[in-house]
Order: sequence, then C-alpha cells, then structure tokens
Amino acid sequence: MSLFHTIGIIGKQHDSGQVRMTLERLVAYLDLRGRDLYFDAASADLLGQSPERCLDSATLGERCDLVIVVGGDGTFLGAARALATHGVPLVGINLGRLGFLVDVSPHEIEQALDRILDGEYDEEERRLLSASVGAADGQTTSGVALNDVVIHKWNTGRMIELETSIDGVLVNVQRADGLIVATPTGSTAYALSGGGPLLDPSLDALVLVPICPHTLSNRPLVVAGSSRIEVRVHADDRDHVRVTWDGQTDLCTQVQERILIEQAPRPARLLHPKGHDHYAILRAKLGWGEQPQGPRPC
Amino acid sequence: MSLFHTIGIIGKQHDSGQVRMTLERLVAYLDLRGRDLYFDAASADLLGQSPERCLDSATLGERCDLVIVVGGDGTFLGAARALATHGVPLVGINLGRLGFLVDVSPHEIEQALDRILDGEYDEEERRLLSASVGAADGQTTSGVALNDVVIHKWNTGRMIELETSIDGVLVNVQRADGLIVATPTGSTAYALSGGGPLLDPSLDALVLVPICPHTLSNRPLVVAGSSRIEVRVHADDRDHVRVTWDGQTDLCTQVQERILIEQAPRPARLLHPKGHDHYAILRAKLGWGEQPQGPRPC
Amino acid sequence: MSLFHTIGIIGKQHDSGQVRMTLERLVAYLDLRGRDLYFDAASADLLGQSPERCLDSATLGERCDLVIVVGGDGTFLGAARALATHGVPLVGINLGRLGFLVDVSPHEIEQALDRILDGEYDEEERRLLSASVGAADGQTTSGVALNDVVIHKWNTGRMIELETSIDGVLVNVQRADGLIVATPTGSTAYALSGGGPLLDPSLDALVLVPICPHTLSNRPLVVAGSSRIEVRVHADDRDHVRVTWDGQTDLCTQVQERILIEQAPRPARLLHPKGHDHYAILRAKLGWGEQPQGPRPC
Amino acid sequence: MSLFHTIGIIGKQHDSGQVRMTLERLVAYLDLRGRDLYFDAASADLLGQSPERCLDSATLGERCDLVIVVGGDGTFLGAARALATHGVPLVGINLGRLGFLVDVSPHEIEQALDRILDGEYDEEERRLLSASVGAADGQTTSGVALNDVVIHKWNTGRMIELETSIDGVLVNVQRADGLIVATPTGSTAYALSGGGPLLDPSLDALVLVPICPHTLSNRPLVVAGSSRIEVRVHADDRDHVRVTWDGQTDLCTQVQERILIEQAPRPARLLHPKGHDHYAILRAKLGWGEQPQGPRPC
Repeated sequence: MSLFHTIGIIGKQHDSGQVRMTLERLVAYLDLRGRDLYFDAASADLLGQSPERCLDSATLGERCDLVIVVGGDGTFLGAARALATHGVPLVGINLGRLGFLVDVSPHEIEQALDRILDGEYDEEERRLLSASVGAADGQTTSGVALNDVVIHKWNTGRMIELETSIDGVLVNVQRADGLIVATPTGSTAYALSGGGPLLDPSLDALVLVPICPHTLSNRPLVVAGSSRIEVRVHADDRDHVRVTWDGQTDLCTQVQERILIEQAPRPARLLHPKGHDHYAILRAKLGWGEQPQGPRPC
Repeated sequence: MSLFHTIGIIGKQHDSGQVRMTLERLVAYLDLRGRDLYFDAASADLLGQSPERCLDSATLGERCDLVIVVGGDGTFLGAARALATHGVPLVGINLGRLGFLVDVSPHEIEQALDRILDGEYDEEERRLLSASVGAADGQTTSGVALNDVVIHKWNTGRMIELETSIDGVLVNVQRADGLIVATPTGSTAYALSGGGPLLDPSLDALVLVPICPHTLSNRPLVVAGSSRIEVRVHADDRDHVRVTWDGQTDLCTQVQERILIEQAPRPARLLHPKGHDHYAILRAKLGWGEQPQGPRPC
Repeated sequence: MSLFHTIGIIGKQHDSGQVRMTLERLVAYLDLRGRDLYFDAASADLLGQSPERCLDSATLGERCDLVIVVGGDGTFLGAARALATHGVPLVGINLGRLGFLVDVSPHEIEQALDRILDGEYDEEERRLLSASVGAADGQTTSGVALNDVVIHKWNTGRMIELETSIDGVLVNVQRADGLIVATPTGSTAYALSGGGPLLDPSLDALVLVPICPHTLSNRPLVVAGSSRIEVRVHADDRDHVRVTWDGQTDLCTQVQERILIEQAPRPARLLHPKGHDHYAILRAKLGWGEQPQGPRPC
Repeated sequence: MSLFHTIGIIGKQHDSGQVRMTLERLVAYLDLRGRDLYFDAASADLLGQSPERCLDSATLGERCDLVIVVGGDGTFLGAARALATHGVPLVGINLGRLGFLVDVSPHEIEQALDRILDGEYDEEERRLLSASVGAADGQTTSGVALNDVVIHKWNTGRMIELETSIDGVLVNVQRADGLIVATPTGSTAYALSGGGPLLDPSLDALVLVPICPHTLSNRPLVVAGSSRIEVRVHADDRDHVRVTWDGQTDLCTQVQERILIEQAPRPARLLHPKGHDHYAILRAKLGWGEQPQGPRPC
C-alpha cells in the first residue's frame, strides 16, 4: 500500500505567477503518482479546482495523510499553526528562495517527492507555543505560534514594564520595548534580530529575548521547553501593549493583565527528503561562508 | 555687578512632595542672594507664586540670565528643548537621584549655587537635533530633541523599511523596528538600550542605531555632527510609522514620506559647579564600579 | 540515624583572615552537631588540624557524605571538578559576597546547616563538561569543567580558524578569537561576557559562544546537553591555540588537531537550604533591580 | 606639466601569481603614460627590476609623488603606516576582491588610473594612531596604526585589569580580555567583531571597544580624535599583556606600565577615482543588500 494516499495542498496567497506555475507542476506530478488531492481556498482558486476538492484547514488536517505547502516560510508558519493539532505531516516547497521551513526547491519537486512518497524521508518535530491573553472585555484570547509570541509596546514611544515568572518563580521586572518568547524554530527570526541566540531545532527549550531592555544586563534567557511562562503587564501600560502570534498583526490582542505562554500540546511534523541538513541551510541563510568584512593585516 | 541677576525656575510636574520642598529651599537661598526670580507654571503653582512672576517658556528664555531646573533628566530635557534657542544657560537640580543632566543634589543646593553664582562654573554645550517630518495632511511638523529623534514602527508587529541617506549619499535600505538618531547626550538613553555606543558629550557627532534590524550586520553608525540625515519610509509602511522627539508620545507624528534630521542651530548651555566629571556620573549610573557578575576561578 | 555523618571541608587558598574565621565557626558548629570531619590541605593547614584528618580530594570524595566548600565561586568550581565523579553532594559558603554557587552567607552558617543536616534541603544537579585534547606530543589530555571549556587564540594578535561539528554534522568554519563551550552554570560567567545568553540551570543544554567572530552573523548557539561537540583547529593555527577548563591557566593545553567536548558522565550535586531561588541570586548579581541608566522623558 | 610624475609601486608579499600579473599590467600602463617608476623590494623582486629602481619605504616616500599599492587591505595598511609621515598620496589596487582601502579592481587599472593621473580624483584623509608603550627593559616602543592599537591579554586564560583615562580624566577601571582603540578606518575591522559601531571615515573620532568585558555595561565609547588616551595595566597582569599595531604580531610589545595612544601627527592620503562611494563598499562588504535571514510571516 502506498504512503500518503490523500494529500492536501496549501498555496501562498497573492500570487505573482510563480505560485501557480509551481502548483501546476506539483499537481501534475502527484496525479502521475495517483494521489487523491485536496486544496485550500488559495490554491483551489489559482488552479480552478472544483469546490468539492477545496477544504478548510481543519478538514484538510483531518482527511489528509500529508500536506504540501507551496510558498515562503510565512505560508508554512500559517499552515503549521492551522494543522499542528491534527498531527498531519507537512512538506514545504519554496518559490525559488531557500527557506528554513520550505526547503524543497521548485525545480526538484519530482525527485524530492519521489523520495518522500517512497518513505525515504527524515521526520522532524517542531514545537509550537500556545499563549492565552486576558483581553479588554474580560474574555481570554488564545493562539498558537510556531516562531514566537511577542509582547510589544503599542501606540507609544515609551517603554513598558513587564514582570516575568517561570513555573511560578519570579524572574524579573523589566522595562523594555517588549519581550519575545521564541521556539527553536523562531530563534532564527525576530528573536535573532533582538539579540537572541540560535537554538538547535531539536532542543526542547524556549528563549525569552527582551526588546531594547533598559537595564543592559537583561540578557536573553533560555529555559526548558516545559516551562510555564507568565508575563504580567504593569497596570499603567495596558493600553499600550499588544500580543502577536508569529507576527500576524490582524490577530494582535490587547492585554488585560497577564499572558500565559507554554508549549502547545502537539508539535508540527516536518518531513524532509532524507539527508536534510539544518546547519547547511543556516550557513546559506546567515552567510556564514562569506568572506571577512574588514581590513586585516595580510 | 553680580552674575545671573534674573533667574528662572522650572519644576517637575506631578509633585510627590519632594519637588515643593526642594523648590522652597532653592527659593529661600536665591532670595538671600538677592536674585529676581521667575517661575514656570508648574513651580509657580506649587509655590503659590503671584501670576506676574509666572512666565511661559519663551518669556523665561528671554528675560532670564540663568534657568534652574528641578526634577529628573526628563524635566531637564523638556526645559532644554524649550529654552535652547534663547541661549540661556541651564543648571539641573535632581530630587535625590543623580541624573546625567541634573547633577546637583538637593542637599548641596547652597554650596553648588554659591559657586555658580560666583562664576566658579564649567560651561558645557550640548547639541540638539532638529527633525522635520512631512505629515499626513501635507504639512510639515518640526521639533527639536536633546536626546534623540526616533522613527518607530507603530500599530504593527511587522518591521518597517527605511532608506537612509547622509548628505545626499545613500547609506542603506534596511528593515527594522525603527531607527534612533541620537546626540551624545542621548547616547546614554534609548540608543544604549538599542545597542549603540557611548559618545563623549564633547564629541561633535550623531549616532544612528537601528532597532532590531533584520540584517545582523546593520550596526550602529556614528557620523559627523554636521550631517544632514534623510530617512525615507517605504510607501507601504506609512500608516505604521511615527516619529518622536525625546520620546514624547503626545507629539508623535505620522510620516508622509521622509524625515530630515540635522543638528539644531543653537546648542543647550549647561552649567556645572567647577570640577564636573561626566565619567564619574557614567560610572555611577552604569554600575561600572560594581563587582564581577559570574563564577570565575579563584 | 543522622544525615551526612562524615563531612569534608574545603577552604579557599590564600587566606586574608576571613577564611580562617569562617572555617572556625563552621567547625565549631559541626562539632556541636557531632559530625566526623575531614579537611583538604588548605583548610587543615589554616586550622592546624592533625595530618590524619587531612585528605586529598579523591579520598574526601570517597569517605564523606557531604562536602562543605568555604570560599568564592572559584573555590567551588575546583571542588566540583575534583569531587563530581564521587557523587558526593556539595554545599557552598561564601565569604561575605554572594556567589552563584556559594550561596550560604557566613553569618547564617548555623541556621542554613541546621536545615540541611535535618534534611530540609533542595538538591540540584549541575552538569560538567569533559574535554579531551590531542596534545603536541601525541598524547591526549582530558579534563572536566563546571563552567566552560574555552578554546583561545594564544600568543598571537591574529584570529584562529575553527571548524565545529555537532554529532558528526558540520556547523560552521569560523574565524574568531576563540570559542567558549559553556554549561548552564557557566552561562553567567565568561560566556556572558562574550555575548552569550543565560541558560536556566535546570536546562539540559550547552551553549557555544564565539569570541569576537569575524562574521557578524556567527551568533551564540544553544544545543542539547547530549551533544558531542568536535572542534578542529586549522593546521596553520596550532601553535597559537590553547584550551582551558574553567579558565585554569596552569592546565591549558596546546591543541594538536581537534578537541572533543561532551557532558561528563556524572553531574555535580549541589545542596541548598530549602527555598533556594536561583533567579533572586541572578537579580542581585546582575543588578536587575537597579534603576534605569539614562535620561528619559518624565 | 603632468601630475604624479614619479610613482612608487608596492606589492603584496607571497605572490600566488596574481600579484605579478597585476603588477605587470600596471607597469605596462604607467610606462605608456611616461611615468618614472620605483619599486619596493617585493615588487622589484617579482618583476626582476634592477636594484637602482628598488627603494626602501622611507626613500619611496621621499622621492615619489604617488604610491600605488597592489594587494589586499593588509598590504595597504602596511604601506600607509610606512609612508604616512611623508605625505605622499596612496592608491590601492586589489587582486580581484574589493577591499575597504584597495578599491580599484585589477581589470579597471587603466581607466581608473587615467582619471587619477588626469586629476579626476577624490582625496581622502585617514588618520593614524600613534601608541607608545613602556617595554620590559624600561625602553619605550612606539608605533603607528591605521586600523587599531589593541591591548590584548597574552599567554593567559584570565582577564586583565585596565585603567583608562582620556585627557587626564579617569574613564573606568575594567576587567576584560583587552581593549581595542580604533580609527574610523579600523571601525570595520577587529573593533566591529568586538561589538563596536561603524564610524564614518570622515569623522574625527576614535572608538574604544572593550573585548569581552566582565561588566556588561562596559560598552564601546566614541571620543574626539584629539583625545589623549592613557591605559594603565594592573601590576599583576604585566606579564600577560601585549600591544599590537594593526594586528602585526611580530611587533607586539610587552607592557611595563602604561600605553599612551593618540592620533599620529599626519594622516594617510588616499586617492580614489572621482565618485568614490564608501557606503557602496560598506553595503557590498557587510552584505547589507542581502535578503532577510529568518522565517517571517508572509
């Protein structure tokens, strides 16, 4: 019996032509391999698929044995947030520019998927974060993130005051522009811009990176993945704080009092053609192979 | 003839008792020394002064030979912005906690001012920045800052794209949370939290500090004080950018297209009792005398 | 039956008077509590103990149920390196200045030890690193470290080139002044000066911190505690590289070709009076409670 | 009358073939343009020039109207140190890889030099540092540097203690691995690896960058170019400190007690074909045009 019989396809929104071309090549290949295909709204629309093959995320997650994401890392982040609870594995195809998460190039779709469909794949688990926030109206807003949950100052040039506890133990009260709580996946994204370290993707840990902290010794802190992180916002700052999940600004939420952040119960499952090398991607993306930058003696 | 015959007094707003006490001690001393005194609204109100001794900033700047500021560094920043164009010298008295700008302690008011009124003072010039911004309605908004002009992302979790030129030469196009342009005075404030260097207060220079830049090699840049800095905001980001002067959020301004930043024509004049030592203040404020932080071998 | 019947005592070398005073107070207390005591050479000498109560580290580790270390964090590091393989628990008494590892103050010896001897203690495991180095003569030199194993440039102003692999996978080839591999314990020491993050002491992880790396994107990297780290030194640089364990310069070793670093098989066991709070120590040592450093608006 | 009649040529040592090829092309061109040529030992040797056309640096500096350097930035640093006192202008030709100082590519030698010999050039002054050190035998060793003077720990894994004063005013006493004092030219070299800011090359300033300072608030400090910097080494550390000029390790000097650093009296004069753009080089060398590094939302 073949692996991954029913396959879902999710495409980047706002196509510039390349998405459609890549999706068409992908569908042609999967048809040849005899798979049943379903599509999200964006890719169904681009490909002119019939309505019955177009499913919402939840149904894609339930019905499919595998979901293939075509786009950039941002598209993949969205797919992972939507599908992680269903336990369905994900493969990412980029649009010509290597991503950390979308590591299959469009010109190697056939070879890469041949290997995956034949069982020649590496499976990786990436943990997500779950954050729940007390909103202005007393309701709780919850969301998941694959990269990071960020507590931002909002609509103000001032710093905000944040009190952070881990597993009920006070860590510190700090004034800063905000706080990034990132997974290993997110350690190469916003947390890195904020001065955080890289975390190996297999490490069961989270990193807390203060944004422009007032006290210079308020450095990034790496804690166990099982940590329950609670951040309380100073009462005077509550109109000037927002929380975002993976930087999606349409979902950002005002903070009534506190934010609870912990690992989501179920990780995202990523499949790569065998031989996947995270550090090779890191070297390429961070320019580690580049030549030195300054005048040094010969 | 005595020095500084007519003296203006500016007090911190929102008194917690200590401002009034310090102002009263200051007035008692200056009455003894036979000075003519004028007050800003806040200090006139606290002290119950008659309306004719209460002047607005501009008139204080014109009439007075010296202005004494009682409060924290923030109060002093406001006074310097308001008075710098008048060329009147300033003295800062703190409320018990040493400031970079308010360096006279309340318990040494008499000795410190004796020396200053007797001509035993050091005078320091601190340059201000002037920034002019094209606002949404096509008008230009201008303002001055003693610490910094900051271009912030606003109402968004996303980065903004900024193109910076100096004296007409492109420096870079970068994506970041914002950009701090700071004077040497401001180099110990927000710019320091953003990873900027300290600048000696006598240095005729400005520092540009990107906030959480996407590209890790986008480092702080120090340029000549005479530089004309132009920052253009990417068209897509204009609803999500604000400019602040010294972090005053009530004055923050939306950006139509570009921000021009250069030194203000006239510096603030700071007087200190002779023997003023900037680096002693820096050591005290940054904890440089503190003991080491970690376990090291004996 | 009483806990910790046989107790070893290790004292800081090079006494300035305070070590002896603290040791005497400690011995008086432990005599009252009826414990059998043994001493290392330094403390035996200071207290004039008879030779038969003076033991070397290995024998202290074998015979004792508990070892009490009097000194600074450096003294404790040495004791932990010497005793970790024996599995004997350690308590640290400082000499008046709080340490990360020596957290019992001399004036609370009796209350703190009452609680520990009565079983009212928290036990913490801290992992050590083991590094083995190919030396110039072809021999292998091995050593353990509680803080860090550091690969330094030596006798040169030039950078060295290091190739790092983890579990057989290449991470990068970088030019730098050196590389710090630190435990969570060491994350508050040299690694912090080098720009590394703080690691929670309970986290099973290591951090690799490049020292002044040539490529700006060569950032600190946090990896699983079980990682097998191999660092190869460029052939041209081998005369200009040394390895140190916890910064002990008398043990530093020239590098023939490569250094293997992994967790030591057995952790150090630290006992604290119940209620030990690592983050309270961190806040005190890093000045997190301190007031802000710069002039900000009022 | 023609500009730059007598021209000196300095070539990179240790040729790999490319130096000779570039020198030959350069000489052929200059012969056509009728210039009198002299050579340093390295280039005379490579080209088989007669002894009377081979001059030492001092004589090259005296006789020539222009000196052309063929090599990398390191070769140029050496030429600038040797020739700056003579006031002779310098042009740098790289060997195929753009440098900050050697900005003429080998394939554009003729066009670039046509413009310079015709007077179509931009002239830039770059300040050098002069440092004088009390050596072990009581003698004073002096040297100049175009990039930086660095005070390093040496032969030790421990930090050293340095007391820094500027113009006779104490800045701080800090423990660190060392201290970099860099010119604007050097701000893109070792100082950048140590966390320092970029300085505009026209800025009359120096930057002091502590290497792995123990106190986290010991940040880079930018001071006026006219500053007289004195660094005193703690008595216990004098066997473990060395000073280097532009990282030349063969010249490194032990420190008896103190190091005095100030700008050298005469700057290096750099000529570029008109339209030289420092920031374009910076963008190329620091990868500022590169794409973002991490997964961010679409």
